[in-house]
Amino acid sequence: MFVRDVKLSLFGFGNVGQAVARVLISKEAFFRKKYGLNFRVVSVADTSGVVWLPEGVDLREALLVKENFGKLSAWTNDYEVYNLTLEEAVREIDADIVVDVTNDGNAHEWHLAALKDGKSVVTSNKPPLAFHYAELTKEAKKRNLPYLFEATVMAGTPIIGLLRENLLGDSVRRIKAVLNATTTFILSRMEQGIDFEKAVKQAQELGIAERDPSGDVLGIDAGYKATILHCVAFKPITFDEISVKGIAEVTVDEVKMALSNGKRVRLVATVEEGNVRVAPEEVSGPLAVSSNENVALIESDLLGELLIKGAGAGLKETASGVVSDIVKASLKLR
Amino acid sequence: MFVRDVKLSLFGFGNVGQAVARVLISKEAFFRKKYGLNFRVVSVADTSGVVWLPEGVDLREALLVKENFGKLSAWTNDYEVYNLTLEEAVREIDADIVVDVTNDGNAHEWHLAALKDGKSVVTSNKPPLAFHYAELTKEAKKRNLPYLFEATVMAGTPIIGLLRENLLGDSVRRIKAVLNATTTFILSRMEQGIDFEKAVKQAQELGIAERDPSGDVLGIDAGYKATILHCVAFKPITFDEISVKGIAEVTVDEVKMALSNGKRVRLVATVEEGNVRVAPEEVSGPLAVSSNENVALIESDLLGELLIKGAGAGLKETASGVVSDIVKASLKLR
Repeated sequence: MFVRDVKLSLFGFGNVGQAVARVLISKEAFFRKKYGLNFRVVSVADTSGVVWLPEGVDLREALLVKENFGKLSAWTNDYEVYNLTLEEAVREIDADIVVDVTNDGNAHEWHLAALKDGKSVVTSNKPPLAFHYAELTKEAKKRNLPYLFEATVMAGTPIIGLLRENLLGDSVRRIKAVLNATTTFILSRMEQGIDFEKAVKQAQELGIAERDPSGDVLGIDAGYKATILHCVAFKPITFDEISVKGIAEVTVDEVKMALSNGKRVRLVATVEEGNVRVAPEEVSGPLAVSSNENVALIESDLLGELLIKGAGAGLKETASGVVSDIVKASLKLR
Repeated sequence: MFVRDVKLSLFGFGNVGQAVARVLISKEAFFRKKYGLNFRVVSVADTSGVVWLPEGVDLREALLVKENFGKLSAWTNDYEVYNLTLEEAVREIDADIVVDVTNDGNAHEWHLAALKDGKSVVTSNKPPLAFHYAELTKEAKKRNLPYLFEATVMAGTPIIGLLRENLLGDSVRRIKAVLNATTTFILSRMEQGIDFEKAVKQAQELGIAERDPSGDVLGIDAGYKATILHCVAFKPITFDEISVKGIAEVTVDEVKMALSNGKRVRLVATVEEGNVRVAPEEVSGPLAVSSNENVALIESDLLGELLIKGAGAGLKETASGVVSDIVKASLKLR
């Protein structure tokens, strides 16, 4: 079987980036056998610097350096660490696919640079999509390049692929979805009588919420995701145009009252054409998820109701989406 | 916007074929606006004959003829009705996409003829896939032609697209699924104390089961679908290699006993690499579907558990899958 060498440029080497690296290492034979693909990671970047080697960076070593020293710039043995902005790195480094697993709020700039340079883009980073969807997808379409972002919504659960590449004869009417696992965790704790502040603290201790939990708690993360779903299911919109209310004002009493009526309070996204809202709602049935599950209920004219439910967080689970997109983009390389 | 004219050759004009025709008519503007596609149906065939007009058959008229006379051969006004075998028709008629919504058990022959002739194939017809998957997909791959079959499993619920084009980095471990809505209906009636024979009769009266209900009741339909899932998730296999047990021996007592334990008896397909079984099982949770829902629970190494649930039967719902594939194939035309 002909094996194609695919050059990846990996931006971001935090938890998700490392999880992607582990999948690339551990499933190397799988990718070669199933798809005839050999991934060569030509660069790895974190906030400390860019490690770049055209022949391919040793990912095992990169993981060791990161685990032991916390930053790639500590890596001197055999490797040069370059001091480049991400946009410079995108332009300089010869790669087939630029993989963005950073949290860079301005990443749309180097996504665009990558596309203009003829590189495919795979991203788990939400702001570029939530603020610049139209521009980015237009550029990708113009150049006939994959611009893939499965992991931005519901981790590896393939809601994006489902909406972008399937149901092509259907007109979507509405999507109701629970898209943020951290708020589900907090609300679940509140169902047990634990107050909001304490539940947030527990989530932080377990590594479920970040040190600054506001992105989750205020509904911004869910709002980004709901914005992206609208872009895919209907037409481009930006996060600034949607309505977002988080769970900070939800009380234990409200949560318990709902529970006594057989319902759960969850942070629900409602996506209709031209109208996106994120707010706590009392739900029952499939939307009443627990743990790290996310769920989306898609209503459309022909098929009726379609439910997709799966992991919405987690490292392996997010890497699943990123790596699926890497394979998808690779299979489209000319 | 540039509008591309796509020539469709429609084989089968029973309930599903007519439903597809209705979608093509009613969403004509949608397809033109959203995808730049104009579908020209150059032929329509039922068992009575082939109506063929290179400039395009009037689908509204075709539906009227079928509704009023029950067969296309009754249509004489302006149209020639040809007496061709389906394979002859496939070869003779100039089309971009051959759409098979028949029940022809030997359709693989003319699917192959279509592919060899450079035509894409979209099918809701299961036996070609359940017996000839390897040959058909190999031919399609060789010629770089879409061979699409979303509607063969779970109607328009996009389980095929999900497995074929997503989760590309995951290794599927197992699929558990309820794939036949007729047996779900019968078993649901049995939960109410109605015996098997009577429940089958009710299903027939409601048009849910066919006059000969054996394909559903003996698990053959679910077996075809489970076979197809195995082919897509793992590797080619044929229906002859799988284990199938239907619901004919399930008693009302068993169904009620399960119910008293909070479980439901459902006809469950279990698909693992090299091992496919269809048999009645006591289930609870997401597999305990009702009405015309189908469900699949996909277990894979990275993502964990993924649930997809939606319509598994119905005319509009099946047309959803067929038409989505028609659009998908059209977008790949060179």
